[in-house]
Amino acid sequence: MMEEVLAYLDGKKDANLADLLTFGAIPSVSTDPESRGEVRRAADWLADRLRATGPLTVEVLDTPGHPVVYAEWLGAPDAPTVLVYGHYDVQPPDPLDRWESRPFTPTVRGERVYGRGVSDDKGPLLIPVQAAEAFFQTRGRLPLNVKFLFEGEEEVGSPNLAPFVREHAGRLRADVVLSADGGMWRADVPTLTVSSRGLTGLEFTLRGPSKDLHSGRHGGAVQNPLHALASLIAGLHDEQGRVAVDGFYDDVQELGEGERASLRALPFDEDVYRAEVGAPELVGEDDYSTLERLWTRPTLEVNGMWGGYTGEGTKTVLPSEAHAKITCRLVASQDPERVAQAVVRHLETHLPPGVTLDVRASDHGARAYRIPNNHPALLAARKVLTQVYGQPPLEVGMGGSIPICEVFQRELGLETIFFSFAVGDEDIHAPNEFFRVPRLYEGQRAWALLWQALAVREATPA
Amino acid sequence: MMEEVLAYLDGKKDANLADLLTFGAIPSVSTDPESRGEVRRAADWLADRLRATGPLTVEVLDTPGHPVVYAEWLGAPDAPTVLVYGHYDVQPPDPLDRWESRPFTPTVRGERVYGRGVSDDKGPLLIPVQAAEAFFQTRGRLPLNVKFLFEGEEEVGSPNLAPFVREHAGRLRADVVLSADGGMWRADVPTLTVSSRGLTGLEFTLRGPSKDLHSGRHGGAVQNPLHALASLIAGLHDEQGRVAVDGFYDDVQELGEGERASLRALPFDEDVYRAEVGAPELVGEDDYSTLERLWTRPTLEVNGMWGGYTGEGTKTVLPSEAHAKITCRLVASQDPERVAQAVVRHLETHLPPGVTLDVRASDHGARAYRIPNNHPALLAARKVLTQVYGQPPLEVGMGGSIPICEVFQRELGLETIFFSFAVGDEDIHAPNEFFRVPRLYEGQRAWALLWQALAVREATPA
Repeated sequence: MMEEVLAYLDGKKDANLADLLTFGAIPSVSTDPESRGEVRRAADWLADRLRATGPLTVEVLDTPGHPVVYAEWLGAPDAPTVLVYGHYDVQPPDPLDRWESRPFTPTVRGERVYGRGVSDDKGPLLIPVQAAEAFFQTRGRLPLNVKFLFEGEEEVGSPNLAPFVREHAGRLRADVVLSADGGMWRADVPTLTVSSRGLTGLEFTLRGPSKDLHSGRHGGAVQNPLHALASLIAGLHDEQGRVAVDGFYDDVQELGEGERASLRALPFDEDVYRAEVGAPELVGEDDYSTLERLWTRPTLEVNGMWGGYTGEGTKTVLPSEAHAKITCRLVASQDPERVAQAVVRHLETHLPPGVTLDVRASDHGARAYRIPNNHPALLAARKVLTQVYGQPPLEVGMGGSIPICEVFQRELGLETIFFSFAVGDEDIHAPNEFFRVPRLYEGQRAWALLWQALAVREATPA
Repeated sequence: MMEEVLAYLDGKKDANLADLLTFGAIPSVSTDPESRGEVRRAADWLADRLRATGPLTVEVLDTPGHPVVYAEWLGAPDAPTVLVYGHYDVQPPDPLDRWESRPFTPTVRGERVYGRGVSDDKGPLLIPVQAAEAFFQTRGRLPLNVKFLFEGEEEVGSPNLAPFVREHAGRLRADVVLSADGGMWRADVPTLTVSSRGLTGLEFTLRGPSKDLHSGRHGGAVQNPLHALASLIAGLHDEQGRVAVDGFYDDVQELGEGERASLRALPFDEDVYRAEVGAPELVGEDDYSTLERLWTRPTLEVNGMWGGYTGEGTKTVLPSEAHAKITCRLVASQDPERVAQAVVRHLETHLPPGVTLDVRASDHGARAYRIPNNHPALLAARKVLTQVYGQPPLEVGMGGSIPICEVFQRELGLETIFFSFAVGDEDIHAPNEFFRVPRLYEGQRAWALLWQALAVREATPA
């Protein structure tokens, strides 16, 4: 029954890869005000691509930030409805000099396509679009009702998604969210991500002297904001690798032995992981395994730190200012706002003499997320992945955050299944981001089968 | 006897100020490889200006770096010879957005001219050139033999000056060095700088994972080089504000009570100084006064520190690398090389886990300097400043470094008198550097009188 749909996808491999090369060439960097026009261009391209699949109703809807691309087909009144989520915006490409091919010239080398955003999330996002085309072009219809919601602000924390979802709650009603964003844990074995960490962040500036000073003439008598910054940041962790912020762990539950055991049971080789990230050694919180550190423990990371002279050669300056950007990853029960406040309090109470502190809270946060273990869509996804890959998927956690899970749960009461065919090692947010071309085709088959499974399950009660 | 020389200078005020505006407009940034042509243009302009003064022999002499501008007049065989030192290169102008007028468009506002390098050292350097012109144009000769040596690499630590001086030692023979570089301590009272701190420096990179990682997916399991950098830098000072590097103070002599008393006797108001630098409070090594910290104690300052994402917005990156630039100011007996090695050893022994260290030593260093208290040129300078300003000069130290003092002492056996009319508050090495226009004219009188005094002193034995 699915043969013609899958055969159609097989015949479209080149065209579907070409879509990704075209889509990936649009530098839709949502964090960069100067890229606003390019983000809009990516939205328009995506809307056109959706229209080309078949009888979808497609709209580009404005928000106070970047637009939402929305499309729907509701021609199966007796079948359930899925809300497909993805994002067409991408991270900034810098550092540019570390790319082997240009970030916005998607380039196929072997079985990989390299380019900013091809894995996060343009490749995975195109998969359900292309799967929909296969149904429309072979059967003239989808097996169930589908609503596509593609946003352009995921990389800046989706500030306008919650208001958008709230405003359009009636229209977005569905039975489950299928996220094309998320990423599989490993390339060699199918996985389903069932939890993700939350996020909160802030940025701060330390100000010392009112102007840059000569470090010879004034050094030793005036606080150097760079020294103060180093001292503040060094004090954010203790000797055991724990975050030293008072109250940081207040709402964190210790792992149960059952959870630890199931993590130990996963096929995970620390040496292989260490080699993958290219680190001299693995470093983290004492008394936790690497998977525990990555999936179950909150973290505080400095994402950027700068001040003074950073060019070629020497400049004997004692700078007026120093800056840092921080994000924290959160686990179940931690409140983003409360954690951010604890970090701010720490900065205030540990401020070295001779500088003032100016904190700008990040305008977004997200709670950690976990899908219920017996959710029907999770069961269907397990079945489909087993069929496509010939082995049952591992169920894993994710160190990153997908703030939208919380949004869909709060605003629409929906759970989210991560059904992405990106892999966690594809250097997203880093130079030489890539996507595995075969995953594009595997993903299309899997999405088609998943939709079919969800439709059948509901249409024929067990 | 000096009337006609001084009257000539009075008549040239506008032209001499115009010289500085023209000279200051050449962006001779020696540390920037892209400014090489501009540094050469500044050398050529200066050579032409020297030729215009009168019967000087002028040459632009190549070095492996930027050229030396050399000029001499040796028509007074019975008089002593002075070697006049200055530099025509300047610091980089950044941060550009902090300048109120463009750094290479010297602009007069009130009694100040603003521009990069006008105080350090183009204004002070022009003073003896313009004084020479006054002698040539009124008397046809100078009162004593003068050799001008203007380098283009002072702001990068004068790497080619020592070899140059060694190579031309015969030609550079003189009785004393008069430095047009250095700066007076204060604007309200004449001062003579009799000591300066030495300098050494280095730059280092910490490397963690082999590529930038997603801080959500990998944070907590991999050392963040920014955390490691903060920890290393924070550990370079202890709680008492002392440098925590083992061996750093080995060759530092504690201040005698006499020296402390004479520093206390200087008119120095900490509150006024604090307000000048615009710092919330003064911070430094415990148990030392601000002047002691500035002139008599060695320091370690971070001049630049950077890594990760430093642009607008959020980027959840765990960067592969982190960087810092450090310079140390040294006091008598400290060896630049030895101190640099101690710092490197500290970095190596305190290196946090999970990162590797790559140190690049700065290619230059300088010992601290102090002129003998009874040097005849110092006595003459005291007399002349008393005459020009109506009060005897204070004798002060200098927190900065003038590496050339050591060069002239070692290579030529000469002491150096700092006879500069820049003032220490003129924001050199910072945005909105300025030079006080009246100092240009006062300086010309003082140089003319000093040359005359030195000539007479030698010609008529006491």
